[in-house]
Amino acid sequence: MTHARRTGATPLYLDCDTGVDDSLALAYLLASPETDLVGVGTVSGNIGARQGATNTLDLLALAGRGDVPVAVGAHDPLAGTFGGGPAHIHGHNGVGDVALPPSGLEPVAESAVDLLLRLSHEHAGELRVVAVGPLTNLAMALRQDPTLPGRVADVTIMGGAALHPGNVSPVAEANIANDPEAAAAVLSADWDVTLVPLDVTMRDVLEETDRKALLEAGTALAPWLGEVLDLYLGFYVETFGRRCCALHDPLAAALAVGGVRPAVAPRVHVTVDDSRGPGRGQTICDLRGLHAGYPDQPGARCRVVLETDAPLAPHLMERLLTL
Amino acid sequence: MTHARRTGATPLYLDCDTGVDDSLALAYLLASPETDLVGVGTVSGNIGARQGATNTLDLLALAGRGDVPVAVGAHDPLAGTFGGGPAHIHGHNGVGDVALPPSGLEPVAESAVDLLLRLSHEHAGELRVVAVGPLTNLAMALRQDPTLPGRVADVTIMGGAALHPGNVSPVAEANIANDPEAAAAVLSADWDVTLVPLDVTMRDVLEETDRKALLEAGTALAPWLGEVLDLYLGFYVETFGRRCCALHDPLAAALAVGGVRPAVAPRVHVTVDDSRGPGRGQTICDLRGLHAGYPDQPGARCRVVLETDAPLAPHLMERLLTL
Repeated sequence: MTHARRTGATPLYLDCDTGVDDSLALAYLLASPETDLVGVGTVSGNIGARQGATNTLDLLALAGRGDVPVAVGAHDPLAGTFGGGPAHIHGHNGVGDVALPPSGLEPVAESAVDLLLRLSHEHAGELRVVAVGPLTNLAMALRQDPTLPGRVADVTIMGGAALHPGNVSPVAEANIANDPEAAAAVLSADWDVTLVPLDVTMRDVLEETDRKALLEAGTALAPWLGEVLDLYLGFYVETFGRRCCALHDPLAAALAVGGVRPAVAPRVHVTVDDSRGPGRGQTICDLRGLHAGYPDQPGARCRVVLETDAPLAPHLMERLLTL
Repeated sequence: MTHARRTGATPLYLDCDTGVDDSLALAYLLASPETDLVGVGTVSGNIGARQGATNTLDLLALAGRGDVPVAVGAHDPLAGTFGGGPAHIHGHNGVGDVALPPSGLEPVAESAVDLLLRLSHEHAGELRVVAVGPLTNLAMALRQDPTLPGRVADVTIMGGAALHPGNVSPVAEANIANDPEAAAAVLSADWDVTLVPLDVTMRDVLEETDRKALLEAGTALAPWLGEVLDLYLGFYVETFGRRCCALHDPLAAALAVGGVRPAVAPRVHVTVDDSRGPGRGQTICDLRGLHAGYPDQPGARCRVVLETDAPLAPHLMERLLTL
């Protein structure tokens, strides 16, 4: 299958661990005319890489987009082994224990690394990368071909916590903590990165009323997203005191596409703690410029999003309801 | 010299590295009727421990309180050696390069550790400890006598950064970073600790107009404090864009005395990063309860002050102007 490229749309590669909020990010990208999803790679995180690919294909098929190539990526992080995803958050199958209609589609034969490298040549200088899972595939691609950054327009990463507490340790966020060595490699590579940390993703929440609207959309994909969100909104009751959820991955997608824009996003030096100390997995962002309005730091390539110009949920819902 | 104990006042031991803001904390305590300063120990930090003791004695003498025993404490941190204080912040002598009138007084013969342990017996169950420098002396006292916490009412520590950037690294604050091993020992000991981190001390600033008011006080000590503050306010222009300064140490003193009260101060688990990784010196405070209003964590002994009930500067100035 091939997909006719949309005129003027930016080619975008999505690396993900589908995943409930990954599902929303994927759907948002499919519904976004500004961008052309040219490939998806999966990685273990919310669920194993293979199951993540199956989930992605099922969702793509529901959206009538089985033409998008999906490649299975790394099962294990650079150091250590994948410990299994958090079933109480994303379900035992990654999509909230919902049985999506099986697409019957298969992942492409090439690995996620090979797919990314191939797409970076096909769309050299234009390809936008959005990574919303652990950064293993990106780190392996950099290792395999250190010239990759020269062909990528930019990288948007959902991950980390700057001045906000972590979610898997007091200071570490799950995507980074699942593979700190990979994150360290990706964040020190020679490309422009936009980091979308918990500081912003914990603010933009989707409410139970939004989920109900998805259920009642009468379209092909949206009602399934409403089903997939059920378990996830239940998990967040402990955090927010009501049924709602953070919008981690779709916020990164929306920032990459331009549907939401960064309002406070200083370019600062970011170090990933890949030690074995208590801070392992932390994204140490140098935000000491706080009291001076966060001036950009000379030589810094990573933009850390601390505020956005608008809440994501209304914009996201508008697009999801079209699918 | 002996000092007649004030009736009803709480006995308080101050551990400090005098230091410009230490000078303000010391003066504030002397001006506070709620408390009785029964001893001071010094430690290397803003300046070497010996010079810190000289500065402390000079200030005490100016306030007519040469009766307060001052003991020299640790010159070096538990691991490594003291690297010298930041002369651009506290001056080459710790008190902003101001030549205070020499008191002619000498520190007591006993060490800061021995002074603290002795006072903890003399005021068993009542002694309040305020530590506004590196925590070396307190850690050494715990090592020498592990029963110390049982005789101490509570410990208030200026140090660390919770959700605020650090000041000597992106995540580490100077007092903790100067001796992470000591901080780890003190924060895991069996006593009630109130941690006063940069999150609150960077909010309460003293303005140049306040400094001028001190200069013109016409009292014995306050004009000298105004002189001592000159260099310090100059340093903070880079941070705040104007001549003013953070009130790190006096805020800890005011919280210990009750002149300012904690407004948001959850009891949470705190781990000091004493690894050799990039987070070394960080106070990792488990503030994952942020979105639930920071419920206290079972078993946690450390209260992390994130908000106070009132700005410190007006209250501090009122007291300093009496000396």
